Amino acid sequence: MKLDQIAKRFRIDKPDTFKLADHDPGDTAGLTIDKGDAKDLLKEGIDKLSDLQEKLYADNRWSVLIVLQAMDAAGKDSLIEHVMSGVNPQGVQVFSFKEPSKEELDHTFLWRIAQRAPERGRIGIFNRSHYEEVLVVRVHPEYLKAQRLPDTANGKDIWHQRFDDIRGFEKHLARNGTLILKFFLNVSRDEQRKRFLDRIDEPAKRWKFSMGDVKERALWPKYMEAYEDMIRETSTPEAPWYVIPADHKWFSRLVVSAAIVDAIENLKLEFPRIEGAALEELEKAKAALKAEK
Amino acid sequence: MKLDQIAKRFRIDKPDTFKLADHDPGDTAGLTIDKGDAKDLLKEGIDKLSDLQEKLYADNRWSVLIVLQAMDAAGKDSLIEHVMSGVNPQGVQVFSFKEPSKEELDHTFLWRIAQRAPERGRIGIFNRSHYEEVLVVRVHPEYLKAQRLPDTANGKDIWHQRFDDIRGFEKHLARNGTLILKFFLNVSRDEQRKRFLDRIDEPAKRWKFSMGDVKERALWPKYMEAYEDMIRETSTPEAPWYVIPADHKWFSRLVVSAAIVDAIENLKLEFPRIEGAALEELEKAKAALKAEK
Repeated sequence: MKLDQIAKRFRIDKPDTFKLADHDPGDTAGLTIDKGDAKDLLKEGIDKLSDLQEKLYADNRWSVLIVLQAMDAAGKDSLIEHVMSGVNPQGVQVFSFKEPSKEELDHTFLWRIAQRAPERGRIGIFNRSHYEEVLVVRVHPEYLKAQRLPDTANGKDIWHQRFDDIRGFEKHLARNGTLILKFFLNVSRDEQRKRFLDRIDEPAKRWKFSMGDVKERALWPKYMEAYEDMIRETSTPEAPWYVIPADHKWFSRLVVSAAIVDAIENLKLEFPRIEGAALEELEKAKAALKAEK
Repeated sequence: MKLDQIAKRFRIDKPDTFKLADHDPGDTAGLTIDKGDAKDLLKEGIDKLSDLQEKLYADNRWSVLIVLQAMDAAGKDSLIEHVMSGVNPQGVQVFSFKEPSKEELDHTFLWRIAQRAPERGRIGIFNRSHYEEVLVVRVHPEYLKAQRLPDTANGKDIWHQRFDDIRGFEKHLARNGTLILKFFLNVSRDEQRKRFLDRIDEPAKRWKFSMGDVKERALWPKYMEAYEDMIRETSTPEAPWYVIPADHKWFSRLVVSAAIVDAIENLKLEFPRIEGAALEELEKAKAALKAEK
């Protein structure tokens, strides 16, 4: 089976019946390949993506928005590094959304997000996103206090309202030329534990670790409930979620790369054709340059 | 001679006596290497830059600002692609400054620039920059009208005032943790002509070309005067200009890459050390994780 077909298997096209428990974080779709082959395949994906990005830029009508969400240590950062390194950095914009600032809290939760939507011709990557608002904030409802919402927004319907806002926002982006792909890197609790222990032992990584990371693990079931509900409510035809098995990094990188390549290929982009008056002008320019010598 | 020493030769440390005519766009510092070797050397540079960027991010005190200025077709875009592709895109931010928008014209010329200064831990690349204000605007003083400057700003001292503003702005950035490197890609007029003709003939590139590009060529001597003055006035110890021979793309890429690597290496960055209470907490986290099984 080809990688783009494998990628489609992980796209949630029927969100109503979605159950996270049906998705094995250790799945590799029966693929068993060695490290070298995985690297070569990923390199192929990067080369394709480089070519597609050039056309995206030349075409200048579409932008691509890639949303990454996951538990800590699921591999978001290294996925960005491995899937996108090699694509022209001029065409790629990565934004990491952290705890909102005071200024950001003075606006609606989509305010800072909308500002960072990718420009036409670019690939924008959200490392965490507006979905934190229905994940970490849902698991820690005490964070809502800082948002100073009116009672009408902060009632029992709050999460449905947020899902509805997000669907509307993404529909607006998609309608106006943003290709949206959303990836949940589905890592298992046990694999997270292993990766945390590795991180603690490695001098180049241990500074990334904090006691808070361990505390959040205790809330794992609540997070999984929030992820499941998020995917049910916001996987739409114009902005689908992919639930990517993430216990094997080589596999999650290959699948995400293939899904992105496939989606951009479907735009069937071409370099702009120069015709008519524009072509005449080009010929004039050519003649003027040639006449210089 | 090593590449970092070659790079230093092109840094303008004595701007008072700087003459552009002394700088040969076709210079390769006596290096004659084949394409393959140039590619390997560049790959080495990218690998070093990748490692340095990781430390820059972990250290989280410094940012790096790389300013690129040049005549059209000098190779700015492809330099960004070749020197930075492979560095983690999460650590690199590229901004292309185009003609200012109406909103931007309602502010001083440094307003939009300051907003895009790179965050701590990141490498920011300005593809064109505030220097357009003393280059294209100087060659086309009619552009000043749209800026609606008060008479005090729009007098005969305007360029000296702008140089002074820029020096002050860059000193401020440098003082507060921004490592600044500025590159003028010095292409010859004849090489530009060749590249324009190539561009016109290549379907994947011809859409980039406009008649305006040819018209600007007629102003070449004025641009060269403006560049010379700019370098004299704004090459400072905290934000030096490099005048990079750009008729051979392999050479300009290697020299720019070496200059960036050398400058970041001089910061002598290390991964943050975890000591004292933080180390104790880490040990506690480790014990808690291990006790889970």
